[in-house]
Amino acid sequence: MTTGVWLVGARGNVATTAMVGARAIANGVTGTEGMVTERPPCDALDLPFVDSLVFGGHDVQSGSVVEQAEALHERNGVPGRAALDAVRDDLAAIDDRIEVGTARNCGTTVERLADEAADEADSLREITNQIRTDYDAFAEAEDLDRVVVVNVASSEPVPHDPTQYDTVDAIEAALDDDDPLPASSLYAYAALSAGYPFVNFTPNAANALPGIRELAERENVPHMGRDGKTGETLMKSALAPMFADRNLRVESWEGHNILGNGDGEVLEDEENKAGKLDSKGGVLDGILDEPFHNRVRIDYTPALADWKTAWDDVRFRGFLDTQMKLQFTWEGSDSALAAPLVLDLARLVAYADREGEGGLQPHLASFFKAPLGVDEHRLAAQFDMLTEYVARHTDARADAEGGA
Amino acid sequence: MTTGVWLVGARGNVATTAMVGARAIANGVTGTEGMVTERPPCDALDLPFVDSLVFGGHDVQSGSVVEQAEALHERNGVPGRAALDAVRDDLAAIDDRIEVGTARNCGTTVERLADEAADEADSLREITNQIRTDYDAFAEAEDLDRVVVVNVASSEPVPHDPTQYDTVDAIEAALDDDDPLPASSLYAYAALSAGYPFVNFTPNAANALPGIRELAERENVPHMGRDGKTGETLMKSALAPMFADRNLRVESWEGHNILGNGDGEVLEDEENKAGKLDSKGGVLDGILDEPFHNRVRIDYTPALADWKTAWDDVRFRGFLDTQMKLQFTWEGSDSALAAPLVLDLARLVAYADREGEGGLQPHLASFFKAPLGVDEHRLAAQFDMLTEYVARHTDARADAEGGA
Amino acid sequence: MTTGVWLVGARGNVATTAMVGARAIANGVTGTEGMVTERPPCDALDLPFVDSLVFGGHDVQSGSVVEQAEALHERNGVPGRAALDAVRDDLAAIDDRIEVGTARNCGTTVERLADEAADEADSLREITNQIRTDYDAFAEAEDLDRVVVVNVASSEPVPHDPTQYDTVDAIEAALDDDDPLPASSLYAYAALSAGYPFVNFTPNAANALPGIRELAERENVPHMGRDGKTGETLMKSALAPMFADRNLRVESWEGHNILGNGDGEVLEDEENKAGKLDSKGGVLDGILDEPFHNRVRIDYTPALADWKTAWDDVRFRGFLDTQMKLQFTWEGSDSALAAPLVLDLARLVAYADREGEGGLQPHLASFFKAPLGVDEHRLAAQFDMLTEYVARHTDARADAEGGA
Amino acid sequence: MTTGVWLVGARGNVATTAMVGARAIANGVTGTEGMVTERPPCDALDLPFVDSLVFGGHDVQSGSVVEQAEALHERNGVPGRAALDAVRDDLAAIDDRIEVGTARNCGTTVERLADEAADEADSLREITNQIRTDYDAFAEAEDLDRVVVVNVASSEPVPHDPTQYDTVDAIEAALDDDDPLPASSLYAYAALSAGYPFVNFTPNAANALPGIRELAERENVPHMGRDGKTGETLMKSALAPMFADRNLRVESWEGHNILGNGDGEVLEDEENKAGKLDSKGGVLDGILDEPFHNRVRIDYTPALADWKTAWDDVRFRGFLDTQMKLQFTWEGSDSALAAPLVLDLARLVAYADREGEGGLQPHLASFFKAPLGVDEHRLAAQFDMLTEYVARHTDARADAEGGA
Repeated sequence: MTTGVWLVGARGNVATTAMVGARAIANGVTGTEGMVTERPPCDALDLPFVDSLVFGGHDVQSGSVVEQAEALHERNGVPGRAALDAVRDDLAAIDDRIEVGTARNCGTTVERLADEAADEADSLREITNQIRTDYDAFAEAEDLDRVVVVNVASSEPVPHDPTQYDTVDAIEAALDDDDPLPASSLYAYAALSAGYPFVNFTPNAANALPGIRELAERENVPHMGRDGKTGETLMKSALAPMFADRNLRVESWEGHNILGNGDGEVLEDEENKAGKLDSKGGVLDGILDEPFHNRVRIDYTPALADWKTAWDDVRFRGFLDTQMKLQFTWEGSDSALAAPLVLDLARLVAYADREGEGGLQPHLASFFKAPLGVDEHRLAAQFDMLTEYVARHTDARADAEGGA
Repeated sequence: MTTGVWLVGARGNVATTAMVGARAIANGVTGTEGMVTERPPCDALDLPFVDSLVFGGHDVQSGSVVEQAEALHERNGVPGRAALDAVRDDLAAIDDRIEVGTARNCGTTVERLADEAADEADSLREITNQIRTDYDAFAEAEDLDRVVVVNVASSEPVPHDPTQYDTVDAIEAALDDDDPLPASSLYAYAALSAGYPFVNFTPNAANALPGIRELAERENVPHMGRDGKTGETLMKSALAPMFADRNLRVESWEGHNILGNGDGEVLEDEENKAGKLDSKGGVLDGILDEPFHNRVRIDYTPALADWKTAWDDVRFRGFLDTQMKLQFTWEGSDSALAAPLVLDLARLVAYADREGEGGLQPHLASFFKAPLGVDEHRLAAQFDMLTEYVARHTDARADAEGGA
Repeated sequence: MTTGVWLVGARGNVATTAMVGARAIANGVTGTEGMVTERPPCDALDLPFVDSLVFGGHDVQSGSVVEQAEALHERNGVPGRAALDAVRDDLAAIDDRIEVGTARNCGTTVERLADEAADEADSLREITNQIRTDYDAFAEAEDLDRVVVVNVASSEPVPHDPTQYDTVDAIEAALDDDDPLPASSLYAYAALSAGYPFVNFTPNAANALPGIRELAERENVPHMGRDGKTGETLMKSALAPMFADRNLRVESWEGHNILGNGDGEVLEDEENKAGKLDSKGGVLDGILDEPFHNRVRIDYTPALADWKTAWDDVRFRGFLDTQMKLQFTWEGSDSALAAPLVLDLARLVAYADREGEGGLQPHLASFFKAPLGVDEHRLAAQFDMLTEYVARHTDARADAEGGA
Repeated sequence: MTTGVWLVGARGNVATTAMVGARAIANGVTGTEGMVTERPPCDALDLPFVDSLVFGGHDVQSGSVVEQAEALHERNGVPGRAALDAVRDDLAAIDDRIEVGTARNCGTTVERLADEAADEADSLREITNQIRTDYDAFAEAEDLDRVVVVNVASSEPVPHDPTQYDTVDAIEAALDDDDPLPASSLYAYAALSAGYPFVNFTPNAANALPGIRELAERENVPHMGRDGKTGETLMKSALAPMFADRNLRVESWEGHNILGNGDGEVLEDEENKAGKLDSKGGVLDGILDEPFHNRVRIDYTPALADWKTAWDDVRFRGFLDTQMKLQFTWEGSDSALAAPLVLDLARLVAYADREGEGGLQPHLASFFKAPLGVDEHRLAAQFDMLTEYVARHTDARADAEGGA
């Protein structure tokens, strides 16, 4: 049984790194560090094998995955030379399966960077039809049992009035009327309406619009999002419960992020940054009871290339009104943190699809900054949800096998 | 129903801060930040009120609690002037209830600092009898329903061969033979043999010796320890599960602690430091599967007074063999972090005693660096144990009330 | 010979702390740490004694210096209780010498905070006349030989076209025409035209306008500015030469400042922030040869009160194209860093005035982020200028004495 | 005119990186960042060209420079692939010029790591004769005008009584008697007695022994040391003057260094660490007037490979007795920081030799943690000494040329 992974933003850093990594694992030249599904509890599930995943995708920038991987190696040292050399041919084959995508309503910065987006004269219906045709062609050409679509494209501006897309009907009307639906939602619509599971790894609207969620429910297709939780926000979701449980009242949490890749460049645009800041800030509000000063800065610093440094300063009030503080610096490769989660999510959503579990996947909350439909932001509690999900499925299998 | 709290090391920073804080809360001049028992879930239990706690204790250094509180205020700003002024009379009253303790087998540094320890010519039997007499006198004089003994004394050297104290009989024999049982175990023995609950907030042997644990079981007296988890180790227990669950393989975790109070001075003595380093380092080994470089340094830096700075540097390996890192700096008032937990533990252990729950108290694991009888070091999982304990008791009460 | 120090912004944090400190030193309850003039080389000059300085000033906020000092103590612990108690009466006496100032053209945030600024219906001529009258009255009432005016008021917006004020005539015309000259320049004009030395400790235009500088030259009155160099920028001027001299090419220098006092609140206003960012950023450009990414952020974080944290992240390129990095965190009391320099500058400028040295004072460059008329930003080289100035004057004195 | 550079410890990280870098510069594949002599003021001197330097050396570990360079690339990414590929043949040629050295009196850790040290049965006279023979053979075989010996070997234990080597005669007697003179001093003796300039880049005794210094004076051979100032100590010498000049009284300066290369491994041995700690700590004592808490820790953390992280925590007392703090984290490639300075020193000492300037070279103080014969530890002041030296020589040249 083969699973296809269709990456929206296939020549971006995250997608490239995910594909390099999957193929490097398949070729035995790297380990599986960073992949949640390769250790307990998830390794007990009967997931599609990493080395059997077939990749394809959309992009709006020209070039090739091999070139992109080379550039990542040169600028960041990730992937390393050995991994890159081992997967060069595999990447070349993937390049043949990357189609031209759309940058519709992605903001002027993305549109400027897009050098081969689909014809902007097309209607939204034409665009979504073409997207769906690309999905179908991939499934057929590669003889896939299942295709999971994962959005790893750049940040888009937040739609001006998301509430207008509250129903499937409203979505359909918007498509008919060429309303400014963001590109991410076009990809989500095309996937879910055709029965392809969808994961939104970005802060974009995509499947977060209520109308798209309704569509997924109706079609019984699994989907989840949004905004992969990879670094500073991961730390916040691990640490904030400590303050809460110890009754240490946070007075201010300042976060300053600097990063140097294209993601950072797009986020220089205040419009595109808004959604990202929103999901980064929301995690703390979801854990800490009392009001506090909560600010997140994201700045583009080209010298960091694909690396990302987050500096956080937390002031909290303890016993006898004593103010104390925590400061941390998190330094990671943006893509190396995100890429394995893309593989994890593709595998877990494919599994859910095979099990017939459509709609949102709350047990995947730990993967996201703003998990759709889940109020729980505490990292450990989110992991417990995943552990319980696995236990439920492995127990069921044990029962079934026991009964046989 | 009144509860007495007997503090071993009653004129130390932690004890003094705990007493100042309890009385400041009682006098309405400060809030309850830092106290776990003053927020959900524990606030649902029927615990002794903070303002009803009666304090007494042992110490081996002369002086008064008021002087100690003044010194803390002058050097650290904690407690603040308003709190200190509000509790001055209360502290003076407590001073009358502080007896001369023992520094037997506490190492040369502590013995040098001890200016009024009990006569070192006494036999261990004479010492433990005197300690018990002090406990009893406190209970009687203050008309207490219950006395909880909490050890907040200085770090002692690790006993040379702890396994020789594996049974109650071995402990009794050691007492008869004047074996070098550390002072902490003398206090524990005196308490548990007379039915007084005991909490070990230090890294000392105390009630961790199997013979003492057997004694507590036999007498059905609640007890717990050891080594309060207040800062760097608290952070470790919150963060290490994040690395584990995300399959980010920790390669090294370097911790460098600097502190300037008497605790730091005692820890300059390598013998006394050993036990502390042991419990600080053990937390990570209990959470992370694979071997890694794990070092903890504790250095005495007088300029920090009662404040403590921990700097940790964590290197971890993620996807595609990428090494990344986290560094944090935690800066807190040692006593302001520890003191509220002392009050929490006194209340929770008193509660267990009233419920007839003798022996170790695993639901209190989150309070300790090296929780006796508990292998679980992940902070959130430890908090879950506390939450479940509370739920069990409040449900029981609800049932009982429902049935009435 | 008595020297008066007239502080513009006399009830602000910096002014209050300077006055508390000067009087605490006079009363023997604190040392002179932080004062450059109290150690070599400056202590060899015949400067006015700290305890002989007489304080007065302008402000646009009501209240009293005593109240302000109390508030600083309560919120920050600086000044300490002992210092505050020792100077309370002295501060009360100073309060009688504080007059209502002007907030003209200081931006809407300052105007909103100003609750007793001079009548905004007044013409600029009326305002400057009143200011000068206040200076004169102070000199006469206190029987002062000399009055030094030091501007420690809030940040103002940068004037829209500073080049229009290039001559004394242009300044005079602007005053006649009620052009939007900022308040800082009104104070500078009033001082210099009447022969009072002037120091601009703020990033404001003040005496930086060429027309005002011409005025000081013409009247032969010493003056200097601008923007006291107290923390992050001080560090930059100490560290950047190290990178330059070692041929370590800086690629990016990110600075993130958080502070919680009124200064921070005013800087939330983008207009007021512009000038500050300009002088903070300029230091590096003046030291490092090659272009690099240079960003400074200033954010208002109320929990920090009068304390200030700067986090800087520096990436530099060394041998074999190796990128390396330096990160630092500087945490200080904003006012405790600035206040002693205010006293230093008042003493040194009074000295220059006595020596008949009018115009800019380049030997004071080390005190300022943007030293007027000085291109040298390297801290050590700036200190060398001060050392040479002192040597010149003490040698001259020695010669004179030797000749007598 | 060709200059030979003889590296003691030629297969170590620093030597290897220096040779890779020099040849990469010669081949035009990298820039000259990190080299002090490639920017003003030194670039005005008529120094031997980098690409003309001829390398040879001693080592006690087997292997080849190429292998060592490969290992450095694999573990640290420095040197990069392009540089390494460009110099592979050059390195192979150098390998032919590396002779077996001595590990005599280098401590047990170094002796354990040494797998091909000269026969330990040899007398010190035999060893020094052999060393000198190697120097001579190099000079002759490569037809060199001049050979500079630079010691970049591992840290040795401090000699038990260095004062016994106070004269040339005492050194000669020690050699005759097989006294435990450390290896570094044998290399220095062999060089200076034969007229070869010598640089000690390590904390070892080498040419710091008064008898060796007397020898250099007598022979009029330039030499300098000791212990290259590359990272944390460089920072200290840049920052400490700032505290001093601003009258900010340092109360404690804690430095914690972690590093993962062989240097770190050797320093795990307390004996070898002593000398290093001494020179690291001494810099601050040479700049700050008043006593303060001064501690340096060096810990071996294999995960860092050849990278080095220093974390420093500085507490200082300012105005009104306010304690404030600075913390910094310096992260660099140990070898990339040190290697360019080795080239700088070789060039500058060769220049001095050509100019006939024997004995210590105080103008090179900025390169060393413990500059021989120089009390000045302030970085900027040390750079001024270098600038003045260059000015003296370029002015002389200009005069000479002008006179022609």
